[in-house]
Amino acid sequence: MTTFNGPDYFWKGAQTLKVPMELFKLNRQRLCEALRAHRTLPSESFVFLQGGASEMRYCSDHEPLFRQESYFHWAFGVIEPDFFGVINVHNGESILFIPRLPSSYVAWMGKIKETDEFKKIYHVDHVYYVDELEKVFNEIVGTSKLILVLNGLNTDSGKESKAASFEGMDKFHVDKTTLHPIISECRVFKTDLELDVMRYANKISSEAHKFVMLNIKDGMHEYELEALFQYYCQRHGGMRHMSYTCICATGENPAVLHYGHAGAPNDRQLTSKDMCLFDMGGEYYCYASDITCAFPVSGHFTKEQRIIYEAVLDANRQVMKSVRPGVSWTDMHLIAERTQLEHLKAAGLIQGDIDEMMNVRLCSVFMPHGLGHMIGIDTHDVGGYPDPQTRSSLPGLKSLRTNRLLQERMCLTIEPGIYFNQGLINNAYENEEFKKFLNRDEINKYLHVGGVRIEDDIVVTNNGCELLTVVPRTCDEIEEWMKYNDKQVIDKIDYK
Amino acid sequence: MTTFNGPDYFWKGAQTLKVPMELFKLNRQRLCEALRAHRTLPSESFVFLQGGASEMRYCSDHEPLFRQESYFHWAFGVIEPDFFGVINVHNGESILFIPRLPSSYVAWMGKIKETDEFKKIYHVDHVYYVDELEKVFNEIVGTSKLILVLNGLNTDSGKESKAASFEGMDKFHVDKTTLHPIISECRVFKTDLELDVMRYANKISSEAHKFVMLNIKDGMHEYELEALFQYYCQRHGGMRHMSYTCICATGENPAVLHYGHAGAPNDRQLTSKDMCLFDMGGEYYCYASDITCAFPVSGHFTKEQRIIYEAVLDANRQVMKSVRPGVSWTDMHLIAERTQLEHLKAAGLIQGDIDEMMNVRLCSVFMPHGLGHMIGIDTHDVGGYPDPQTRSSLPGLKSLRTNRLLQERMCLTIEPGIYFNQGLINNAYENEEFKKFLNRDEINKYLHVGGVRIEDDIVVTNNGCELLTVVPRTCDEIEEWMKYNDKQVIDKIDYK
Ligand SMILES: [Mn+2]
Ligand SMILES: [Mn+2]
Repeated sequence: MTTFNGPDYFWKGAQTLKVPMELFKLNRQRLCEALRAHRTLPSESFVFLQGGASEMRYCSDHEPLFRQESYFHWAFGVIEPDFFGVINVHNGESILFIPRLPSSYVAWMGKIKETDEFKKIYHVDHVYYVDELEKVFNEIVGTSKLILVLNGLNTDSGKESKAASFEGMDKFHVDKTTLHPIISECRVFKTDLELDVMRYANKISSEAHKFVMLNIKDGMHEYELEALFQYYCQRHGGMRHMSYTCICATGENPAVLHYGHAGAPNDRQLTSKDMCLFDMGGEYYCYASDITCAFPVSGHFTKEQRIIYEAVLDANRQVMKSVRPGVSWTDMHLIAERTQLEHLKAAGLIQGDIDEMMNVRLCSVFMPHGLGHMIGIDTHDVGGYPDPQTRSSLPGLKSLRTNRLLQERMCLTIEPGIYFNQGLINNAYENEEFKKFLNRDEINKYLHVGGVRIEDDIVVTNNGCELLTVVPRTCDEIEEWMKYNDKQVIDKIDYK
Repeated sequence: MTTFNGPDYFWKGAQTLKVPMELFKLNRQRLCEALRAHRTLPSESFVFLQGGASEMRYCSDHEPLFRQESYFHWAFGVIEPDFFGVINVHNGESILFIPRLPSSYVAWMGKIKETDEFKKIYHVDHVYYVDELEKVFNEIVGTSKLILVLNGLNTDSGKESKAASFEGMDKFHVDKTTLHPIISECRVFKTDLELDVMRYANKISSEAHKFVMLNIKDGMHEYELEALFQYYCQRHGGMRHMSYTCICATGENPAVLHYGHAGAPNDRQLTSKDMCLFDMGGEYYCYASDITCAFPVSGHFTKEQRIIYEAVLDANRQVMKSVRPGVSWTDMHLIAERTQLEHLKAAGLIQGDIDEMMNVRLCSVFMPHGLGHMIGIDTHDVGGYPDPQTRSSLPGLKSLRTNRLLQERMCLTIEPGIYFNQGLINNAYENEEFKKFLNRDEINKYLHVGGVRIEDDIVVTNNGCELLTVVPRTCDEIEEWMKYNDKQVIDKIDYK
């Protein structure tokens, strides 16, 4: 097995990244420190986490490929299903509980690893079997100490996390409120070791986007580009999972933000006049990338395509220049909106006073989503709203996945966009507050652009930000790169 | 949208297959006929099915790509989540219930289709919203008629299907036992329209296997071959889903039957001496293919590799020649075992009387799995054991996923194999019944072969079977095909 071939790291071989298991030890340490700093928590407490479970598709015998639950991955880096983990808050000691596999496992699933092997692979202090949970808890926790389980709201999905449990747990003291906000807050700030993985996931996904640009052709179907992207990520990056379902939108489809889902499955045939909006990112060892490239199928921007593209790019770059510790993400969103409105006004699509437009939230017609989101082990990473009550209810702003003040080591996407969504624009024409700003004749000339989003991943540094995404971004860079298109380039991106 | 661009079929464009919606109408008709033939069922009954639901990964905001629940797909061919369906057994009328989507769907997910659009796409008689279920049931079912829901055991997974339900259903008469065996039995027999999809899924997956053979190279990692296979299936076949997780086993890994899962993630680096066992298949419109190719990385069989390969191929072909309506699948399994034992004896790996070996179930040391399984909308398709009590408890035979007498229009895999699983072989050396047959010195010479499985998909015809899989199968054919390897062949398989 290559993945844990070296005793101290995860690795997919060849030029892929070696990720030291130290990463997870450090995460556990940071969690313990944060918990020990909690004012009322007894020092003798135990974090108890449940890993993801193996599942079947409905009642069938189809087992979807397992991907670890994200909190558990953050704490242990375990790639197998059906584990549990415990961390002693007082001294940082870690315990993994592994499933006891039947002897038939040897024939069907492979060599059964003993507890000692897992201890070595995952660098934990002890390994027991899941069926020993009650016994071990009796010994180390007893009836006096506290078990901290994960129970809380994900503000992006609206779903509650599932608290770890086992048969016989009811006789112990369980705290359901302390852990969730503290571990989520730990996940918000990425360590150097985590940043290396984020950089790598971005690097490979960036290359894959460039690979797609080299191979796109008039007449292809959108799903063929998804196929090319996924191929590159796995073949050259060892990325078996995408961070999210690929969005390969062309023609009018870019106006649909989450295009590509099962009901809109990247199935349109491209024409040479189309703009593409390709929002695709691979994950490496459960760390996500989330990148959107927009470009013309032909490799040459039309006047209208260029005007919209440059409006969005300006917004993206204005935000990037402004990001630093202490600024508010809401303000960044407003910078992006204002920049885009100014461009649209200059091009004649809208008219009137920009401040007034901002007040009535006009930009939400063209950009109904928020500027970006935390990113990490989840694409929409946790920690966006420590207090969900503070979420705005205003158009555009209510879609922000965080409203926090930025701090060093936060990773975020910057993804402004302008979309010509016929439904939203028609509603706007009917809207008393909006319609006076809209120049229907000019807007009509741009409908065919569909939509442009430019999405980069960044990490906040002590005085600004580091850009993790490395793709051609200006119109000139894109046109230059796409000169290499259609040269039977399949597996190389080393043209520059 | 290309997928339902034509009003009467599902299609992914270009050279992919057009699947007429008639397929599902016919399935519903067959189901109604089977239910009407039921002796005690009142004629005025209604089948009520629940489609698959959209889901999130744990508490996160990550939505895995939706794949329809298989019974629901069989009856309606719906690609979207969160539908319900009703079929009037008496007259065959069909009703779909669709989720009522919020107006924000327009921006995030796309144009909201009205009930009339779905009526046209899916060729059903009526379409309502899910929130109208109780109202519609009040009107058409009332308190006198019967609702048939799906409730029963999948004999491969051991899981129970989930009966459809809605708030307020408890006031109706619900039958939980009639539907499951009857609809499962309908699924066992494939119509001509279904067979066209099975042929197509096999054709594309066969091409993808050939594509992998052309591109394999010493030094690659197993997951790179998975990447190539998936790429080909999606790019050229419009297959976005695999039928199951790819098994790309090389070296010793072929001895692990379900290698490739999250804990053994196709991560070994190939050497030129390896045999490959690649068990991979794509699905088209939810119809599965399941193909295993075994071949040497180098393109040339060694003596030992050839001996084992030809033993398995002989077993495969002996079974294929014997398959016809009326024969028992258990007998087919025994033919494969006997053929393989004869080859192993001729090569000197085992010694003694073959009948005696068969009696003690010796072959289960080398082939612990069953000969094959039903295939259709699920890879391990339903209907294998109408009566689970009839399952054998003997080694090898207990792993059979069906023991039925074959009938026309059943689709099955034929997948004999010989594996050198160190764990199983070591156990056999300790086994009083087995050890006298085993020639350890000779077996040791074959351990490096790892394992060979040759898996084809067939449909039983009126006097034999039709082979759906089209890949090079004899050693000579494989060596001939692999001459084209390493010629910078990336996207073509038209060398023959
Ligand atoms: Mn994003
Ligand atoms: Mn199979």
